[in-house]
Amino acid sequence: MPVHDPASFTSMGEGSTACVGLTKLGASLGLERLTAKLEIQNPTGSYKDRGSVVLMAAAREHGVCEVVEDSSGNAGASVSAYAARAGIRAHVFAPSSVPSAKAAQIRVYGASLHLIDGPREAATEAALAWVDEHGIVYASHNLSPYFIEGTKVFAYEVFMQLGRRLPDHLVIPVGNGSLYRGAWNGFREMREAGLVDSVPRLHCVQARAFMPVVAAYMGEDWSPDGRGTVAGGIASVDPPHKQAILRALRASGGSAAAVDDDSILESRRLLAEMEGIYAEPTSAAAFAGLSELVRSGVIGRSDHVLVPVTGSGLKDTPPS
Amino acid sequence: MPVHDPASFTSMGEGSTACVGLTKLGASLGLERLTAKLEIQNPTGSYKDRGSVVLMAAAREHGVCEVVEDSSGNAGASVSAYAARAGIRAHVFAPSSVPSAKAAQIRVYGASLHLIDGPREAATEAALAWVDEHGIVYASHNLSPYFIEGTKVFAYEVFMQLGRRLPDHLVIPVGNGSLYRGAWNGFREMREAGLVDSVPRLHCVQARAFMPVVAAYMGEDWSPDGRGTVAGGIASVDPPHKQAILRALRASGGSAAAVDDDSILESRRLLAEMEGIYAEPTSAAAFAGLSELVRSGVIGRSDHVLVPVTGSGLKDTPPS
Repeated sequence: MPVHDPASFTSMGEGSTACVGLTKLGASLGLERLTAKLEIQNPTGSYKDRGSVVLMAAAREHGVCEVVEDSSGNAGASVSAYAARAGIRAHVFAPSSVPSAKAAQIRVYGASLHLIDGPREAATEAALAWVDEHGIVYASHNLSPYFIEGTKVFAYEVFMQLGRRLPDHLVIPVGNGSLYRGAWNGFREMREAGLVDSVPRLHCVQARAFMPVVAAYMGEDWSPDGRGTVAGGIASVDPPHKQAILRALRASGGSAAAVDDDSILESRRLLAEMEGIYAEPTSAAAFAGLSELVRSGVIGRSDHVLVPVTGSGLKDTPPS
Repeated sequence: MPVHDPASFTSMGEGSTACVGLTKLGASLGLERLTAKLEIQNPTGSYKDRGSVVLMAAAREHGVCEVVEDSSGNAGASVSAYAARAGIRAHVFAPSSVPSAKAAQIRVYGASLHLIDGPREAATEAALAWVDEHGIVYASHNLSPYFIEGTKVFAYEVFMQLGRRLPDHLVIPVGNGSLYRGAWNGFREMREAGLVDSVPRLHCVQARAFMPVVAAYMGEDWSPDGRGTVAGGIASVDPPHKQAILRALRASGGSAAAVDDDSILESRRLLAEMEGIYAEPTSAAAFAGLSELVRSGVIGRSDHVLVPVTGSGLKDTPPS
């Protein structure tokens, strides 16, 4: 970890999330072995805590006492929680369409929430303008290398929890790719260190309304057409690390799939009703993508597939 | 565990929740060592999952395929999740005042949610009438011995996580007491088995509007006066195991405190702003009670205190 003193970490038990078998959902997809990693067990309810704990530890070591972040919601809540614990003041810029549960969560930690009209990118622009105006550190989870060093641990945990083995495939929802890139860095390190001979195929899933990575992978032109998606956590038009994600896709032998909102909500329902797991739509998108990848033959029946459940359903409640 | 075949458990990684130090909140209360156990990391966001996994395993072994439960919300969501995973149909009776996040969570798992007007007890009565009418198993988390066997594991975890030692005090929010009684059973077993010489003092915290146990402990008369509380998870007028809770209070050297809604909400705010932990009001009540117990001298400055954060703030969002 890129932190000098272990005491800089204001840990809250992030990581070490459970890996659980999805027997019924796997069978319904024709898969013999499907595993979920329940990132919803992280303290603020999403995998972002893995990155925030490192980001805030580094901030403390640099004497930072106030930060600016922009987020669709989960990273903002996570950074706010770890900032509170570290005694750092946080300003979070989020789209005004942020689910109310995430907005309330960001505020409860004492962070200042700035709601910005327009797409996800407008929150980034507003954050940058505010950083310029006030001279406060921009602790962007999407740009900070510290954050990605934290999400990297996900890969090592998978290896340890599966008995020092890796699954054949990981299927990951990708907006700006902070879990995807972290996982890839971890698996690549493990291979370079000789811990494993090969890495899993890392598949990328996006919502059909926001599919810049999928389109680039397919060699298609793509631009946003103004449609929204229920998967607000991956509603990114232009991920800053798109090229890095594409390189990881190709290097790992991964594939990419775009899914529509109906299939996302249907996957969310099946995950809850068959397996008792309550995911936010962004997380359910990975399962909708898995279904596509099985149907198209990219993933075989006897392959072992692991899917992270990246955020809790409690953070983005379905319409009743 | 009172289950014959380990394969009967449809585990989702419940338990093994983090113990984290609360340095700043502890200091603000004048305590040298305060620890929180983050039960919000359980798969459905509350400690109830510890009981539900055992209850549903026992139900499966008895060939049960449909159950009735009544709950203020968290146990209903938890039983619904584990029932879904076990392939058991669930009917949950809850007060119509149940927070919307908990109602949505119960429904997402495919359970039938029956909303009942009136106090918490009206949901129990409606559940019982429905059980009589339809001849379905009443899998009450409050009455089932299987459920309490699950919450008992909490005590063993505390022991292991603190390096085979126990804290001096536990402060627990008590409605019907399913965590309080489970913890007591665990600590008592550990003493009887010779693992420890003495047990922690188990303190009980209730909301001032619902304080049957506190009043009995104080030797005072009490009856509900129609007031409500923000701590809906402990709004119980007449806990079925009140006498057992009182015996455990006395046997462990515990005390009892009643707290008002203002202090509950203030404790929730401090926990989030100082420590980055987002608790539901029911859970924050324990910290409000802790403050009382320190002020009254029951808990000393150098004593080690552990408080469970029983349910996630995401389940019961504060008014904005």
